[in-house]
Amino acid sequence: MSDLRSQAIKNPIDIAEYLFRRLHEVGVRSVHGLPGDFNLVALDYLPKTGLHWVGNCNELNAGYAADGYARVNGIAALLTTFGVGELSAVNAIAGAYSEFVPIVHIVGTPSTVSQKNGMLLHHTLGNGDFSVFSQMSSHISCAMSLLNNQHEAATLIDDAIRECFLKSRPVYIGLPTDMVQKKVDGDRLKTPLDLSFPPNESEREDYVVDVVLKYLQAARNPVILVDACAIRHRALGEVHELVEKSGIPTFVAPMGKGAVNETLPNFGGVYAGDGSNRGVKERVESSDLILSIGAVKSDFNTAGFTYRISQLNTIDFHSYGVKVRYSEYPGVRMNGVLKKVTSKMGKLNIQAGPKPTNEIPDMAKLSEPTITQAWFWPRLGQWLQEGDVVITETGTANFGIWETRFPANVTAISQVLWGSIGYATGSCQGAALAAKEKGIKRTILFTGDGSFQLTAQEVSTMIRNKLNPIIFVICNKGYTIERCIHGWEAGYNEIQEWKWKDLPAAFGGTPDEVLTYRVSTKKEVENLFNDKQFVSGDTKQLRFVELVMEWDDAPKALKVSAEAAAKRNAEMSA
Amino acid sequence: MSDLRSQAIKNPIDIAEYLFRRLHEVGVRSVHGLPGDFNLVALDYLPKTGLHWVGNCNELNAGYAADGYARVNGIAALLTTFGVGELSAVNAIAGAYSEFVPIVHIVGTPSTVSQKNGMLLHHTLGNGDFSVFSQMSSHISCAMSLLNNQHEAATLIDDAIRECFLKSRPVYIGLPTDMVQKKVDGDRLKTPLDLSFPPNESEREDYVVDVVLKYLQAARNPVILVDACAIRHRALGEVHELVEKSGIPTFVAPMGKGAVNETLPNFGGVYAGDGSNRGVKERVESSDLILSIGAVKSDFNTAGFTYRISQLNTIDFHSYGVKVRYSEYPGVRMNGVLKKVTSKMGKLNIQAGPKPTNEIPDMAKLSEPTITQAWFWPRLGQWLQEGDVVITETGTANFGIWETRFPANVTAISQVLWGSIGYATGSCQGAALAAKEKGIKRTILFTGDGSFQLTAQEVSTMIRNKLNPIIFVICNKGYTIERCIHGWEAGYNEIQEWKWKDLPAAFGGTPDEVLTYRVSTKKEVENLFNDKQFVSGDTKQLRFVELVMEWDDAPKALKVSAEAAAKRNAEMSA
Ligand SMILES: Cc1ncc(C[n+]2csc(CCOP(=O)(O)OP(=O)(O)O)c2C)c(N)n1
Ligand SMILES: Cc1ncc(C[n+]2csc(CCOP(=O)(O)OP(=O)(O)O)c2C)c(N)n1
Ligand SMILES: [Mg+2]
Ligand SMILES: [Mg+2]
Repeated sequence: MSDLRSQAIKNPIDIAEYLFRRLHEVGVRSVHGLPGDFNLVALDYLPKTGLHWVGNCNELNAGYAADGYARVNGIAALLTTFGVGELSAVNAIAGAYSEFVPIVHIVGTPSTVSQKNGMLLHHTLGNGDFSVFSQMSSHISCAMSLLNNQHEAATLIDDAIRECFLKSRPVYIGLPTDMVQKKVDGDRLKTPLDLSFPPNESEREDYVVDVVLKYLQAARNPVILVDACAIRHRALGEVHELVEKSGIPTFVAPMGKGAVNETLPNFGGVYAGDGSNRGVKERVESSDLILSIGAVKSDFNTAGFTYRISQLNTIDFHSYGVKVRYSEYPGVRMNGVLKKVTSKMGKLNIQAGPKPTNEIPDMAKLSEPTITQAWFWPRLGQWLQEGDVVITETGTANFGIWETRFPANVTAISQVLWGSIGYATGSCQGAALAAKEKGIKRTILFTGDGSFQLTAQEVSTMIRNKLNPIIFVICNKGYTIERCIHGWEAGYNEIQEWKWKDLPAAFGGTPDEVLTYRVSTKKEVENLFNDKQFVSGDTKQLRFVELVMEWDDAPKALKVSAEAAAKRNAEMSA
Repeated sequence: MSDLRSQAIKNPIDIAEYLFRRLHEVGVRSVHGLPGDFNLVALDYLPKTGLHWVGNCNELNAGYAADGYARVNGIAALLTTFGVGELSAVNAIAGAYSEFVPIVHIVGTPSTVSQKNGMLLHHTLGNGDFSVFSQMSSHISCAMSLLNNQHEAATLIDDAIRECFLKSRPVYIGLPTDMVQKKVDGDRLKTPLDLSFPPNESEREDYVVDVVLKYLQAARNPVILVDACAIRHRALGEVHELVEKSGIPTFVAPMGKGAVNETLPNFGGVYAGDGSNRGVKERVESSDLILSIGAVKSDFNTAGFTYRISQLNTIDFHSYGVKVRYSEYPGVRMNGVLKKVTSKMGKLNIQAGPKPTNEIPDMAKLSEPTITQAWFWPRLGQWLQEGDVVITETGTANFGIWETRFPANVTAISQVLWGSIGYATGSCQGAALAAKEKGIKRTILFTGDGSFQLTAQEVSTMIRNKLNPIIFVICNKGYTIERCIHGWEAGYNEIQEWKWKDLPAAFGGTPDEVLTYRVSTKKEVENLFNDKQFVSGDTKQLRFVELVMEWDDAPKALKVSAEAAAKRNAEMSA
């Protein structure tokens, strides 16, 4: 062998095998992506390392799917080919970066020899520069590991996977074709990766806990507000304990939906400034202390920056530090602080909050047969089951879901900050697969007719992988969310009208694999929700529903947010 | 108005209108893309500036479509929204950069006010940095015009469009929401943009011409080899003149297909080293002078770097200079040189070359009924018509087409260097639209079943825009080109089997809009090729054909190239 140094390794294994075994160790069971000639040899290692190859229809969809898989499973892997593959996935990776979703993105690249010689290969810009694409990805990756050297490869792989998990963001691993079969020390695998968060310095942590307790015990009507980063930075255990033990009225921001058991007596609903419901707004905004956990105060998460809460009444808990009013405590991770606060808080002043239900609001009880947004979302809440995974697409769906009170243990997936349409359908494929692997029974998608067109072919991947999600396509003749912002009746907000429910069959789905439905009245929704086969988590078939709504109907929260967005767009510089 | 300085403008027009009028002036008639809330107001300006809005299904497909449109029309425009939209299109733009296709990519961005304040908006990374995405695009754009200042806007627009045309590469224009309606001087539009190439310095040019003539007149058996850059850098007029007047045996590289009138008596066929046909290889490689025009010597364009021609026998003509043997003449553009060489060359020594036909090779005349790759591609050549636009996808199609001798005036589109699959279907939408606008009758696509899955929904956009291309999907049960490289029977080279021809109807295509076919024998191909309605350029319907071939059948040139690629991938570093 030309490869002298590897002879000295006691238990040599190939780099590709090492990489995949590490992924398996941290919980990955399926790898998303597409083949390409720079990753084909690596793909041969998947079966023997216990990993399932999904085989998506395109790389953007594969990236979205990896995102959905990670949100249910904890971490995901995506495998693409140099240039054409990786760049197709860039938008999905940027979304995962923005929303703190851990994806290990492995890119099969040309051999180190070809790179060194600057060869004029396909999938290059034709200028001999092989670093351009990884440079582009470095903006949206929290670690870059280019495996160009056999002797660093194992360390770089370990670092990347650990960073991915701890920072909860995408990392990039470049795997040249000639490195796939190079040897590294397999004995390293006997020591599992350390994925624990480094603990807070204890004196510092105690200091912060005392400050928090001082304010908390003095508060007359505190509330808890839970948001996305509590989920994404793995603080849900600590949050649940605090919420249950304290009995403090607890609200979620839209991106925090699913973080809290919404059946608890002290759950108060969704808070999003002017987008909030009866009672919620008043209760939160009149509170003298808001324990804000993992906040992401983005435009759509706050119904257009309409929070009316003062920093003087706020304690912010984050992965990177705690902020009490204006005093900052950087480097103190929320998890440890929340745990101690819960154990030391004693008896608190509690003033009850509103009790959200899934009651249909009066104005939505009208006898008109059409399915209205105001009627549908609370009605959905009555139908959902404990443990469901619920995915909503940017559009009327991810605003409508604010009105749905969840059963316990629901995992809610929505890309409220990044907001790339088409995401939800791809994400549903990954989420449904992770759910299946974990024994979760139902994955339910709500997408819009406009959004569905971007990534529709991933329904094919679901069928191919024998997944059984329940898919609702909201058929409302185009881009209703955009109409609300600008161009109410403009041609550019219209779409080609598809025969939506004929698609699964065209994608090769047999009647044994797919059931299809169309509902355009409340009555039909009721019947559907009572159809045993449709409802069951044990039904093997994918279920595909055309959910017909009016083109000009939108959830209240969307109207508020859209108006604010239009105003901000027009805001003139001085 | 707060906008004092614009009061001084005599003929004020809005920035969006100015931009679109300039695009119209340089020949754009349709704009590809998707709406998003950061570009909606700009979209309102399209109708009044005479531009048609295509409304694609997703941004990657829109980018591919813009690429196809530009290759037929000369230049194209793509309009996307900040972050999610532009990043989705990045792979298409990189392809256009790599293959020298001029696309003006306009990105609707948040207002300058929001950017300045670093607001936590949707479609951002949540870190207040609004420059990340344009930085990413700067790697694959030959000019960046961020219209953040009203008073520079018109100049930046003019610069970007001019660069796009002259460099024949994508440019990026960032259009903030608050700039759309700001005023610029409309009188500027009275002076059209100067899109002429700066002429060569005449003494230098004459010098080069003399050197070229010296070698050319001394040559005993010269040949001409035309490649992609002759097309992409707009030297076809000069090339045609040289080829016709000189009578020198002329060959094309695969990426140069369509550059030369293949019915000329001195057309000799496709040269690609070991991938070349009977006679071609010998004739080119035994020539004592190769006039190589616009060469792109990439792996797949040379059948795996198997050219056997010496630089000592070569004169290279490029947009950026000329190279005679090893003497370089940078800055001397090929166009002027070729023109003068043609006019001054006098009588030359000509030794005839091979005469390619579309005769079916003997070994492919076998009586087996299945459609073989060896039979199909020359048979196709008999069926094509003058003026056709022919698009081939990376896979068996874009290697197979080497065996097709074209009628005159065919525009051939294939992404041989960038090689992103899914490209061809998107590109077909744009090409068919440009063809329609220019009165070209037939646009014909050959894609693979694997590739088609990436971008299938753009068939919906074709239907919506009332386009009538002829689409062949080669149904061969997966990624045959990849099988040839690695994993001959591997599961990862298989795909979900779709009911391909049911898709157009699911996309809403009525029988008035779409005709579908399935052919799996040579006889059925013959019948199809003789079906008047199918064949006609005047048939209004889109025609969609399942073209069934064997999973293990590949064109000869693909086998040669794939073997070379596999070898290079495995090549070990020292
Ligand atoms: C990739 C991408 N392209 C464009 C947009 C802009 N956009 C946001 S929502 C939307 C329309 C969604 O329409 P639909 O899915 O039908 O939702 P609904 O009608 O329920 O509001 C568009 C085009 C985006 N967010 N992401
Ligand atoms: C975006 C992208 N992803 C992956 C690849 C790798 N790749 C190149 S060709 C190919 C298979 C094409 O299969 P098909 O279209 O069926 O062609 P055929 O069977 O005719 O060879 C793949 C996966 C690529 N070139 N581009
Ligand atoms: Mg819609
Ligand atoms: Mg195929």
